[in-house]
Amino acid sequence: MADDGAQLIGLDWGTTSLRAYLLAAGGRVLAQTAAPWGIMTVPGGDFAGAYRALVAPWRAQRAACATIAAGMIGSTEGWAQAPYRRCPAGAAELSAALVTVSAGDGVTVHIIPGVERIDHHADVMRGEETQIVGALARRPELARGATTFVLPGTHVKWVDVVDGRIERFVTYMTGELYAVLSRHSILSRPAPPVPDAPTHWDAFEQGVACARASSGGVAPMLFATRALVLQGRLPAEKRFDFLSGLLIGDELRSALPTRADRAPILVGEPALCERYVRAATVFGVPLVAMEQPTPAGLWTIAATAGLVNAPVTHG
Amino acid sequence: MADDGAQLIGLDWGTTSLRAYLLAAGGRVLAQTAAPWGIMTVPGGDFAGAYRALVAPWRAQRAACATIAAGMIGSTEGWAQAPYRRCPAGAAELSAALVTVSAGDGVTVHIIPGVERIDHHADVMRGEETQIVGALARRPELARGATTFVLPGTHVKWVDVVDGRIERFVTYMTGELYAVLSRHSILSRPAPPVPDAPTHWDAFEQGVACARASSGGVAPMLFATRALVLQGRLPAEKRFDFLSGLLIGDELRSALPTRADRAPILVGEPALCERYVRAATVFGVPLVAMEQPTPAGLWTIAATAGLVNAPVTHG
Repeated sequence: MADDGAQLIGLDWGTTSLRAYLLAAGGRVLAQTAAPWGIMTVPGGDFAGAYRALVAPWRAQRAACATIAAGMIGSTEGWAQAPYRRCPAGAAELSAALVTVSAGDGVTVHIIPGVERIDHHADVMRGEETQIVGALARRPELARGATTFVLPGTHVKWVDVVDGRIERFVTYMTGELYAVLSRHSILSRPAPPVPDAPTHWDAFEQGVACARASSGGVAPMLFATRALVLQGRLPAEKRFDFLSGLLIGDELRSALPTRADRAPILVGEPALCERYVRAATVFGVPLVAMEQPTPAGLWTIAATAGLVNAPVTHG
Repeated sequence: MADDGAQLIGLDWGTTSLRAYLLAAGGRVLAQTAAPWGIMTVPGGDFAGAYRALVAPWRAQRAACATIAAGMIGSTEGWAQAPYRRCPAGAAELSAALVTVSAGDGVTVHIIPGVERIDHHADVMRGEETQIVGALARRPELARGATTFVLPGTHVKWVDVVDGRIERFVTYMTGELYAVLSRHSILSRPAPPVPDAPTHWDAFEQGVACARASSGGVAPMLFATRALVLQGRLPAEKRFDFLSGLLIGDELRSALPTRADRAPILVGEPALCERYVRAATVFGVPLVAMEQPTPAGLWTIAATAGLVNAPVTHG
């Protein structure tokens, strides 16, 4: 048996990728691994087989490790459906609603449910709830009073947390809008964005400022992106950063006014977080980025559910 | 020689199609024909050949007919570039800026320029300027004072006309946003829209009302389309009409407040115009649709330029 203190295998299992963490007390990451086996891409739809193949090297020496999973793996298209928990929801509500599925060889995987909002606004999340729990575990002071978290990505989540529970949230399709407009619309002509091209921050901030100033919303500005290029007022190679600025600027224009006084906390991929920090600066609002809290969230929910022999690390 | 009074061949030459009209005095349509030979799809990029092939039956007996063309054929990717005329522009400005190109066999084609707006807003149009001139020719009373025209389509134009000239305009990418979101985003799952499916007007009007009521703009409502389906609050088969209502509703929310008191005039394809009429009803605003005025516009600009031996039909 390995004697590294490993107690939990945590899975972050999304639409297009599967990431696994080997965790010790307090959510400390001993090792991690990943495969392009998301729920839409897992070979043969064999979730149990994919799981076993990915973590076999870990399990061989640590048969007693519990396993917990977050993300789209709990959707109707995933391994087993973990019905959404309704807001407000925190670590206690989520850990009380785990859904179990057998991976064979005597291993049980505990799937964390997503969270839904049902009021005048309709919304759902899967995976982000675990990031929120992890962020609160690592920054316990944010679990007192009201805090807003911003999770940039394909479907950006703005999450209002009150006293440690997700009180309400709104999804912005900003990342996906950028992807479909830059690849499939007239704005993609003559060619879509080049991967890893340097960012033209001047054009990005110009887009943010345009979105902020537009009394009619962002809709009349999208085609203007093309017109500005045709008129020689925007260099063609800068148009995608201008568009990115327009879309993120419109999101901030929509989302910022309803938030608490405390500066929103950014959780996400660093390059994307940098765009949000710069855009928010145009609005005169500070955003503070924090490191990826998914492992801490997986650990905290497992600990709250009693799956590991360690104290929960947050208040 | 044919003795049917034909004086003009008018071409409506866009990105994906070419339509030709044989016109007599006043813009009366004697015959029309079309081919899928837009500037992006014309065989071998041979504009002259496509033109001659399409109108050969007409020209054989009417060698003296002048030819005029509107649309993307005058763009940098078209037959010959007809540089944009700047706002304000009407029949006089457009007819003074025709660009000519030889179709061979002694035939000259006169290309109508597009119109651009260069101020705090950047915008361009090609083809719609001819529709506006035609609409004013057919309804001369609209050429006195201020009138707003709405031209629905992939790129919707809201055009403010003052005393018969295009004073300013704004393009909304509403049609293209619907296309890319319903075909290429998560909203397309599990399947994109079925062509010619019946319209669910209740869901459409619900979408319009949501967009009208949203203080944060339409951005937070797009993903809600999916969440409403997941939560059983919107039948899956109605989601595309809800989305259509959201996008058209957001356009009206943005565009209506800045317009003149006179009811906006709709010019476009009847099924699409019906959506705009119904959406505007949710806003308590009447929209009046009129028939396709392109032939009248082609005639009026040709007549103003002296290409035909007939009086201009409008004041």
